[in-house]
This record gives sequence, C-alpha cells and structure tokens, in this order.
Amino acid sequence: MTYSYIKGENIRKFDKLDSYLEKNLDDNLEELKRYVAQPSISAQNLGLDECAVLVKEMLEKRGFNAEIMSTDGAPVVFAERKGKSNKTLLIYNHYDVQPPEPLELWESPPFEPEIRNGKMYGRGVSDDKSHLTSRLFAIDAILDEDGELPCNIKFIIEGEEETASVHLHEFVTNNMDKLKADACIWEFGGVDHRDKPMQYLGLRGICYVELSVESLGTDVHSGLGGSIFPNAAWRLVWALNSLKGADERILIPGFYDDVIPPTARDRELMDNLPDVADDYKTRYGVKEFIKGIKGGTDLKVEEVFTPTCTICGLNSGYQGPGSKTVQPAKASAKVDFRLVPVQKPADILKKLRAHLDAQGFSDIEITFLGGEPAARTDPDDPFIKMVVDTSTEIYGVPMEIVPMVGGSGPSYPFVHDLGLPVATMGLGYPDTKAHAPNENIRIDLYLKHAMHMARVIKEFAK
Amino acid sequence: MTYSYIKGENIRKFDKLDSYLEKNLDDNLEELKRYVAQPSISAQNLGLDECAVLVKEMLEKRGFNAEIMSTDGAPVVFAERKGKSNKTLLIYNHYDVQPPEPLELWESPPFEPEIRNGKMYGRGVSDDKSHLTSRLFAIDAILDEDGELPCNIKFIIEGEEETASVHLHEFVTNNMDKLKADACIWEFGGVDHRDKPMQYLGLRGICYVELSVESLGTDVHSGLGGSIFPNAAWRLVWALNSLKGADERILIPGFYDDVIPPTARDRELMDNLPDVADDYKTRYGVKEFIKGIKGGTDLKVEEVFTPTCTICGLNSGYQGPGSKTVQPAKASAKVDFRLVPVQKPADILKKLRAHLDAQGFSDIEITFLGGEPAARTDPDDPFIKMVVDTSTEIYGVPMEIVPMVGGSGPSYPFVHDLGLPVATMGLGYPDTKAHAPNENIRIDLYLKHAMHMARVIKEFAK
Repeated sequence: MTYSYIKGENIRKFDKLDSYLEKNLDDNLEELKRYVAQPSISAQNLGLDECAVLVKEMLEKRGFNAEIMSTDGAPVVFAERKGKSNKTLLIYNHYDVQPPEPLELWESPPFEPEIRNGKMYGRGVSDDKSHLTSRLFAIDAILDEDGELPCNIKFIIEGEEETASVHLHEFVTNNMDKLKADACIWEFGGVDHRDKPMQYLGLRGICYVELSVESLGTDVHSGLGGSIFPNAAWRLVWALNSLKGADERILIPGFYDDVIPPTARDRELMDNLPDVADDYKTRYGVKEFIKGIKGGTDLKVEEVFTPTCTICGLNSGYQGPGSKTVQPAKASAKVDFRLVPVQKPADILKKLRAHLDAQGFSDIEITFLGGEPAARTDPDDPFIKMVVDTSTEIYGVPMEIVPMVGGSGPSYPFVHDLGLPVATMGLGYPDTKAHAPNENIRIDLYLKHAMHMARVIKEFAK
Repeated sequence: MTYSYIKGENIRKFDKLDSYLEKNLDDNLEELKRYVAQPSISAQNLGLDECAVLVKEMLEKRGFNAEIMSTDGAPVVFAERKGKSNKTLLIYNHYDVQPPEPLELWESPPFEPEIRNGKMYGRGVSDDKSHLTSRLFAIDAILDEDGELPCNIKFIIEGEEETASVHLHEFVTNNMDKLKADACIWEFGGVDHRDKPMQYLGLRGICYVELSVESLGTDVHSGLGGSIFPNAAWRLVWALNSLKGADERILIPGFYDDVIPPTARDRELMDNLPDVADDYKTRYGVKEFIKGIKGGTDLKVEEVFTPTCTICGLNSGYQGPGSKTVQPAKASAKVDFRLVPVQKPADILKKLRAHLDAQGFSDIEITFLGGEPAARTDPDDPFIKMVVDTSTEIYGVPMEIVPMVGGSGPSYPFVHDLGLPVATMGLGYPDTKAHAPNENIRIDLYLKHAMHMARVIKEFAK
C-alpha cells in the first residue's frame, strides 16, 4: 500500500532502513496527525505548553532525555540521546505554527489533518511539524536496525519561530554547553519546481525599525498650518529620502562597511541555478528590475548578496477616498533593512540614529522591532558535501546548492555562537502553502526526507 | 422678552428697523428652526431637493421671483426682487450642511433644533442656515418699514458648498447676465474671540491631488524583492521629496511665477490684528514655526500670503502594530496646494506633471481631486468701507479687516468672472462648532447680524 506514495522509481532499497520506513509509514503519519491536531499558535499564545508536552513525549518514546525549558516566551524542548560515536548532531525544529485564518478558505479544518490524493493537509503540517516527525521516523528506522544511535543526537525545538524567534538567541548563548555539537540540521528544506532537492546555505540578517515623528499636538486644517506649522508627513518624507537615493544607494554613513561581497564560488553556485528573471516578471508583475539589472546570474546574486533598505509601510493623515484638508500631526514608516555578513543590527541602528541626527532629523524616533545578523555556512564544508551527496540515492540527483537566500532566520547563534555548519533538508515543495490556507505536504517527499535523514545520520556518525 | 438675547447694551435703536427685528425675533427663529429641521446633507445626497423647495418658498414669501435651477449636482436656488434704485446686491448662501456624525456627541438631536441659554443648536444652524434667515429677516424689516426694497437684491443659494462647490463656477459662468450685480455679500462671517466683527476679504485657492504609484502586480515578501524589485513606497517618497525641500521651498519649476506678494497695505492690516503666536503654540502644540518665523506680523503674513504644498496623507503597505516584512506594490499621497493670487490650479497641475516627468517620475499618477484659484477683494473698495463702517452702530466698533485668510472657498467666480467686491459678514463666533457636534449660534449675534444687514442694504442703495 505505502509504495503508492512514492512517485520516483529510482530509490535503491539496499538495506533494512528503507523497508522499515515504507512498512511503517502509515503509523508514523498517524503520529504526525496527532501532532498537527494540537494547535500551537505562537502569535496568539495558544496551545504552546500543551504542544511542548506532546513533543517531549514524542522524543521520550525514542529514548531521548527530554526536558521542557522555560524562556521569557514560549518554552523550548531540549532532548538528547547518546550514540555509538562521540560525534554530535544538533537538529533544530519549532513546534509553533502560524494562525490558520482565513478559515473559510480551508478545504478541511486546519487542526483536523486529512490525507487526500497523496497529500496531508493541516496548519503547520509543512512548517514544520512534518519535518520533526519524519526525522523521528528516520531515528525509529535506525533504532530498529541497530538498536542504538550511531552518534549523539540533540534536538532543540522552539515555540516562537513564527514570531521572529525573539528569545532563541539568548537561549542558545545561555546553554552553550548543552547545545555543543559538531553540525546542525535546520528546521526546513525542500525541493524546487523541478522536484530537485535544494541545499539553502545562508540567510540574510534583518534590522526592522519603525520611524515615527509627531510635529504637532493635534491635526489641523491645512488652510491654517500649511505655511507655518511643521508637517509630520513632510518630516518623514525628507528623513526617508536621506536614507536612500533614487539610484538605490543607501546613504547612511558606514552602512556598507561590514559587507562581504560574494565570492567567485558564490557566483559559480548562483550561475548553476535556473534563471528566474522571466518567472519574477510574470509572477510579481515586475516591468523592470532596479539598478539596471536584466536577469541571469547578476539578478540572482543581487537578490541575496546585497543589503536592503525597504519601506514596508507608510502611514500619515487621511487615506480615504477623495480629499480631506488636514495637516497631519503624526507620520510613521516601517523600514526593513536586510543585512549581509558581517553587518550587525545594533551597529546599523547606531549608524541610522547618527545619520538622522546629522541630517537634522533628531525629531524622528526610531523603534527597533526586531533583528538578527546574517549567517552563512561554507558550501564546501565536508558536512554540507555529505548531506548534498547522500541525496542522490533518494532523489536521483545531488542537492543543488543555493549559497544564500534573501529571507532571514535565527541561524546566527547556531553558526556563530555554536560554530556549527548548518545544512538544510526537508520536504517543502513549491505548492506547500506554508503560512497560507490548505497548507500541505506531499507524502512521497515525506518518505524521501526520512530516507535521506537516516542516511545523513549514519554517514555523519562515521 | 427678546431683549434678553442682547448681550451688548450699545445698540442705538434709532429707527423702526431695529424695533421690528427685536419684536419679531421669536417668529423669525421659528422659521430658522423649520429650515434647520430639514436635513440637507450634500455629502450623502440627502434632502437636497426638499431643502431647495423650502428655500424657494422662504424667498417667495418675501416677494422674490425664485427658481430652482438644475446643475450636474445639487440644484441652485436663484431669486431676485427689484427695488427702488438700479443698484443690485448679490447675496451668496448655501442650503447644504455637513453630515451630523458622530451622533452620540450631540446634546440634542442635530435635526431637532433647540434653544438653550441664548443659543440655538442644530446641524447647519451656523453654517450657514442662520446666515440666510437673518438676512431674510433684515429684508422683512425693510419691507415692513418701506413697503419696498431700496435696491435690487439677488440670491444665489447653492447645495454643494460642503462638498467643494464643484458645479458653482460653471453655474456662474453659464448665468453671467442673471447674476449681474454691483457687489456681493458672502455666505459667512462673524466675530473673533474678542467679540469684534471681522471682515475677511480674501481666500486662498486650492489644488488638491492624489499622487499614486504601482510598482508591482502584488505585494511581495521583503526578503525577496528588496534588492531587485521597484518599491512603490520608495518611488513615492522620492517623488514627494522632489516637490519640496526641507527648507520649505517648493521645487516645481514655475510654481512661484504667478505669486503676487502682499502689499504694504496688506502688512499694515495684518499688523493691526492681534498676535497669534502664543495661541497657536498652545492650541496646536507647535514647538517652533517653520522657516525661522517667530511670530508677530511675519507669522500672520506668512500664514495666508504664501502658497503651500502640504502632504495631507500617506498610505502604503503595512501600518499595524509590530513588523510585517512586505514590500508594498502600491503607495499614494494626498497633496494639498494652497494657492495665492494669481496662481491657477490648471497651471499648477501642468507644472507638477512636467516636473515629475522631468525628474524621472512618470510612473507617478496624478489624480486631480478639486481646485479653485484664490480671490481677493480690495480692502479699500468703497463697498467694503461701507460694510465695515455700518458695523459700528451695532457692535460698537467698525469691523476689523483681515485682507486674506488661509482657507479656500468658491469666491473666484464672484470676484473675477462677475467682477464684484465681496464682503463677509455674519454671526459665526469662536465656539460656533461648525462641522462639529453641537453646532450652534448665539441669538444675540443673530439679531446683530440682521440689524447690520438691514443697514448695509439701505446704505448700499444710496
């Protein structure tokens, strides 16, 4: 029965591992269903403690020493099981999920997971509950074959990933000994639109601020104040304009000081990836890329290796239909700086404040809304090479290496505090609908990820 | 009984006019109540036709030939009655009112006018239904005394003043012969915080636009588009910044070409008015005025004699609490240019488009949301002098002349197409709450305005 889940036919069933996974897939999916059925919405502080207990039990079932550790936010589940070799693999996951709204767009209830046409649907099934259970499934297969783990395995499973992992960095630095390891597997991963497995190696950092200004005690009629009162919206526009010119160059002194440009190897890896220009133009309605870029490797490199200063929101005064003659007392902007190695959010904040003051904008308040530095893993690290190569048996091809992606995530403490190479692997795919209604996983990819994971653990232990 | 409404004691009751007005005040206020009780909300197209019929009947009661004339919007009531001399006085009023919301803040229902403590409350009672009935009341007194009018009187009473008088200019230019006159009384006027009657002589013009830009077909994750996609919010910020520098100088080429600076006489009149600097600072929470202005005549002159470029609203992307990492596809701003003589909205629009195109912002769309040029009446015009001087008998002092105010109104066609001096007089006062809950008039000022109006008509006719 379970064979029908497998799409590809090129999987070598050379050992007991694969046949265990195929035979026990249905039971394991039942465990995933129970896990998805437990709501755990960090944005709404809903079900987190209950979910942490469930995760602890799932780990204890595999003979792990598991504990629920409190933070200033949601608890972290830490678990450890010793193995044969003295090498230690650290696996990072999260048990929290996005809110399920809008509910009316779901074809089956978000917390009543359901299998239809070779897929399982439910909130959090892809991001990232299936990533945890498929990894536990791989461990089950190894324990079934060998009766023990080939190396030490540690899990760190947090409950605030969907709300910017605000306490994770502090948790890692407070528990350096506990988390000591030789390599790390990241919470997510997946295949691209060609079903090729991808190895995403770096995440940009972020420094997200709100800039706000209050120029008057109250809104006033624009016929009164226009010629004589300071206007909050104008103050904001001028301050923003001082941050970045129409040529896209960021004008904060020292902003680019810590930027490490991409290497020849980075460009070579980017060159190997498919061209995205036409896809971006049609998918996002882009007429022309900025900075005169046309496409090809230039576009792929620019997308992820340059820092940004993006206005995410502008808010002031009247925004309804027609006209209202009001001079606004307040104005604000949301501004998102994406950072590249080795820029640091605290340093960027300091430089931003100094720049605004120097430009005469000390009336502009800066509210820091979150940040973390970028982090990269060397694409030629032996651990990465092993993870990439072991994929061939399962997917028919080695993983394709993406040296850096444009988004951000909490990988800095793993890479820089713990000093680990961080590999990504998983079962995401382009239609997985993470964060959206009808989030789902493909069960063929679930099984493949478990098979890949079992090989990674065995190879790593050597 | 009616004497109790009069606050001041310095009113000379030298003729039958005043005693008629005092005796018949209560009956006239009943007519005002009926007029206020008829809702006529132009923004909601509510009760306008019914109110126009009521106005027509009120004029016919005084022997006027009245007609309801259609426009592309609300009808205009035009009325005329011949008098002894061949001079013609044109009186401009409007029968529409602002919406009454928020209803819960009214102490008595907005369309059930009520007299309390020498004041009448109701939506539109001040702006500007009492202005019409008190003028009709003055005419009643003259007709009672003389049996005829001393001059021709024409009324033009529109129904769209509260929605920017969008069809009035066209109505005037289409009916130049009908509206021919020698002088005009404006719809509003009143006393200041010292109870001094004010003569407001000029209104700035306005050119109100929405600037909007769409840079993408959809919002995108800021981790994706920040380095490579055009950002609508940035395009808007840069375009706005090109319009006005932080020194408040408007940068559109030719913007100041048609500006006529204030004369020595304007400065002298402004010098006579009370200083407003401290009042503005406390009332509006202004820390410092712009352009280095400290107060005094400089402030009063700058407030009304310079054109403006005011951002009234900014709108783009995410504006809620916390952070959202989205690159917005759209952005827009409401921009209000106040114009001084002899700037014209159509010319400013043309120069704005040319400037944006020249600066590389042809992606910024301009939507014209309304406009009219400034208009002024010579403070030394004999008609103005007469209106100012006749106030002394009623208010104890001549009116104080304000050569220009900062707001805008549809006076251009009266001043420039019909070529009339336009005088303001009326019964507004600082706590009249026009456009706000508990709009009200002081009945002592109502009677004074009727007395003043009767004198103006008699003096004008000579």
